[in-house]
Amino acid sequence: MLTWVNHVALAVPDLEKAAARYRESLGARVSIPQRLPEHGVTVAFVTIANTKIELLEPLGENSPIASFLAKHPDGGMHHVCYEVTDINAARDHLLTSGARILCDGIPKIGAHGRPVLFLHPKDFFGTLIELEEVKGASRA
Amino acid sequence: MLTWVNHVALAVPDLEKAAARYRESLGARVSIPQRLPEHGVTVAFVTIANTKIELLEPLGENSPIASFLAKHPDGGMHHVCYEVTDINAARDHLLTSGARILCDGIPKIGAHGRPVLFLHPKDFFGTLIELEEVKGASRA
Repeated sequence: MLTWVNHVALAVPDLEKAAARYRESLGARVSIPQRLPEHGVTVAFVTIANTKIELLEPLGENSPIASFLAKHPDGGMHHVCYEVTDINAARDHLLTSGARILCDGIPKIGAHGRPVLFLHPKDFFGTLIELEEVKGASRA
Repeated sequence: MLTWVNHVALAVPDLEKAAARYRESLGARVSIPQRLPEHGVTVAFVTIANTKIELLEPLGENSPIASFLAKHPDGGMHHVCYEVTDINAARDHLLTSGARILCDGIPKIGAHGRPVLFLHPKDFFGTLIELEEVKGASRA
């Protein structure tokens, strides 16, 4: 069901500083920060050969990562995003197995323009999991 | 410098339960748990096509993840491990850039039998980073 680790998301209080640190201390390629007001975040990607690290800074008053940063003011690891080929089938299987989906269980369009769902971290041992639908078998 | 995301480590209070949840709810392939008393953990790997998720349960009295689980009893995201081709060169570059290495800065042999270092999470916005030396350019 999980075909690929799309990204690992890290919440940071200052994206410019975090991007500079990843570039300067780790020699990493970091994308230009992109403001996504409809998702309440500014995002930059650290590109590694096999996956991406997503650096997230809150944007606006209702940012979905504001409460996380209130609890972890230095920042921290926020979620893991896995790709699935059929997000509704994945959701149905998860519910049958007893796992909970956050919000209303209806996939929303995520920051990458594809349908996403978030799973309840209590059902996955404290880890927040995002599922993102990526059609096609090229990565499976 | 970072050639590959080797794994993302998740601390869990009960590895058998976590492995069952990843298998049953997410359809994931999870390895047989392996006890590593010299590293203070029992480990199982969730294998995704492009990287691994490492599920860690404390083992013994001096487990390096015991304090994390004392703070996060449900479990949580523990660290990201990146591969580098030359860990001493990476360490020297990190120190020059002002980042701190945990312990004495001398690479130790990690759970995969290769030299590893951990970087100070305060210098990386609350994320604990492991570097693991994997020689050769096959993944670069």
